[in-house]
Amino acid sequence: MPLPRTVTLLGATGSIGSSTADLLRRDPARYAVEAVTAHRDAAALARLARELGARFAVVAWVMAAITGAASLAPTLAAAERGATVALANKECLVCAGALFMRRAAANGATVLPVDSEHNAIFQALSAGRREDIRRIVLTASGGPFRTLPADAIRRVTVEQALKHPTWSMGPKVTIDSATLMNKGLELIEAHHLFALAPDALDVLVHPQSIVHGLVEFRDGSVIAQLGSPDMRIPISHCLAWPVRMGTPAPRLNLAQIASLSFEEPDLTRFPALAIARQVLAAGGAAPTVLNSANEVAVHEFVSGRLGFCGIPALVEATLAAAPRRGATDEPGSVEEALHIDHIARGLAADLLPEIAAMAC
Amino acid sequence: MPLPRTVTLLGATGSIGSSTADLLRRDPARYAVEAVTAHRDAAALARLARELGARFAVVAWVMAAITGAASLAPTLAAAERGATVALANKECLVCAGALFMRRAAANGATVLPVDSEHNAIFQALSAGRREDIRRIVLTASGGPFRTLPADAIRRVTVEQALKHPTWSMGPKVTIDSATLMNKGLELIEAHHLFALAPDALDVLVHPQSIVHGLVEFRDGSVIAQLGSPDMRIPISHCLAWPVRMGTPAPRLNLAQIASLSFEEPDLTRFPALAIARQVLAAGGAAPTVLNSANEVAVHEFVSGRLGFCGIPALVEATLAAAPRRGATDEPGSVEEALHIDHIARGLAADLLPEIAAMAC
Repeated sequence: MPLPRTVTLLGATGSIGSSTADLLRRDPARYAVEAVTAHRDAAALARLARELGARFAVVAWVMAAITGAASLAPTLAAAERGATVALANKECLVCAGALFMRRAAANGATVLPVDSEHNAIFQALSAGRREDIRRIVLTASGGPFRTLPADAIRRVTVEQALKHPTWSMGPKVTIDSATLMNKGLELIEAHHLFALAPDALDVLVHPQSIVHGLVEFRDGSVIAQLGSPDMRIPISHCLAWPVRMGTPAPRLNLAQIASLSFEEPDLTRFPALAIARQVLAAGGAAPTVLNSANEVAVHEFVSGRLGFCGIPALVEATLAAAPRRGATDEPGSVEEALHIDHIARGLAADLLPEIAAMAC
Repeated sequence: MPLPRTVTLLGATGSIGSSTADLLRRDPARYAVEAVTAHRDAAALARLARELGARFAVVAWVMAAITGAASLAPTLAAAERGATVALANKECLVCAGALFMRRAAANGATVLPVDSEHNAIFQALSAGRREDIRRIVLTASGGPFRTLPADAIRRVTVEQALKHPTWSMGPKVTIDSATLMNKGLELIEAHHLFALAPDALDVLVHPQSIVHGLVEFRDGSVIAQLGSPDMRIPISHCLAWPVRMGTPAPRLNLAQIASLSFEEPDLTRFPALAIARQVLAAGGAAPTVLNSANEVAVHEFVSGRLGFCGIPALVEATLAAAPRRGATDEPGSVEEALHIDHIARGLAADLLPEIAAMAC
């Protein structure tokens, strides 16, 4: 019987945290839960800590609603301890990816991606050497407006945007999924996680969300990871890695699903993805600015102060203005990332009235 | 610059041989061709030998048309030398799989599957340990009669059966593909190649032949290999293994293909697959008998002496009668395999008139 693996769960009461707890609960002999943290829900955290036998439960009251920046410091600390970090949030890699991966490498930390698309790529990469990779492809559900004409997308309401066809997620990710910004952020993550050049990263729309990611090798072989859309699959992969554990996730039944479809993303109707690709190519402070401006834009859209097509417009305007406020270089520290974040949020707030007033 | 890899090509003028030669020709510095062999076409073999700079060219005139048995001895000899054997024919594994894999293991030989489905599984297996495998799935195009009603299948002509929707292959494999016996033989191969129990092996009909094989792990992850239907992809995988080489195979464009479909195989309309599954479970001499009886049946069908539905009927009758002629035990040597083959062929010939006269 091997020693139990010590687990610390940051953000334990969220959706990914709950799925993780579900898996830990099923195999208490194998996992020793050291600490659980949550941002707000102290009662749920206490319940979870008792249930999982956690030694510590920490409620981190974060003053500003900086989801991204809030996660950056503790995750970076884990990487600096040389831990195996199963990364479920985008912000570490989008806001400070180079910094994070550099510190992780320097301290011998292993970074495992929890996100279904990146986890799929991580799994598929085991079939070959990185020199033999031609490109990797992240799949996208296409969101609820995949088939909507451009003029209808302009009139999309908050209620419509909050309905995701496949995954049940928080409002921020759901809106990002509707604009396809989500996939843009994931491209930036993939760039850092897998140390691949922007032109080796692609997106393919796949509405059924069964094929989560693909790796194309130079010989023409494409290795893909498929699975029922159940986050316990990629989470379990990280928990048990480098081996695998049983999960209660529904088994994939391709004959029942009958058909998997694929199409190129439409960058005209979904400009957020095009913006993210430009940001990925530009590098420097742009990814951090993109992330912050998008957080502001989505918040303003959900609050009813910005139209759906105002989201990419506000992000684009913020990106254009950020260099003049000094946000040009890639952040070399958490403080620098927070500083760029601060500049970008200020700019986005300043630009909001003008963009909100524009007809897209 | 690493030393060139020494290659001996058995069956160099066939379809797989030609595709292999195409790849070798592109990278002459990397591969030193030791010998090429063919069964009949001496002129083509001589041309190929000069082109590839082969040291030896051998025409093996095989008296009986025992494709399977003909390949058994030289392939087994290669395995016994401890070579890396890229296996493109089914017969070694179907007729004498346990023997072949045992000898290969004892002599430190590496067996690489060239067949697109098995090569796909081989690639996908790198994503996990064998203890974590739930099952593997071989895909089948479904053949030209996939959507044909049962009564129409009964009246299928040789011309209709020789038209394969995706792959261009020899008549034997094309007919096997139309009866789905091909997939049954591949299940038996997979059982030996991957040392998996019959209930961990499945078949899924996938008409586009883009997903070649899938491995389902216990956590719910499914790893698949996809690619354009071009044999140079799996061949190159074997040639370059454990690394990968560039190939001129068309790149997979899923957006252009647009849709991949999947369905369960229909064992009522395609009884050959059901027979093969029973044979796989039975073991002993049954797989060898199956292979020989099927070779006879296909030959008789192509010659116009047996109806399409007579193929599985003749195989089934031969399997039922074989134990009474002493064909019961798994062959422990090439000689024993040849002996079972001989019994089965004799039996099939004896049973032919009766089966051919039956209305299916």
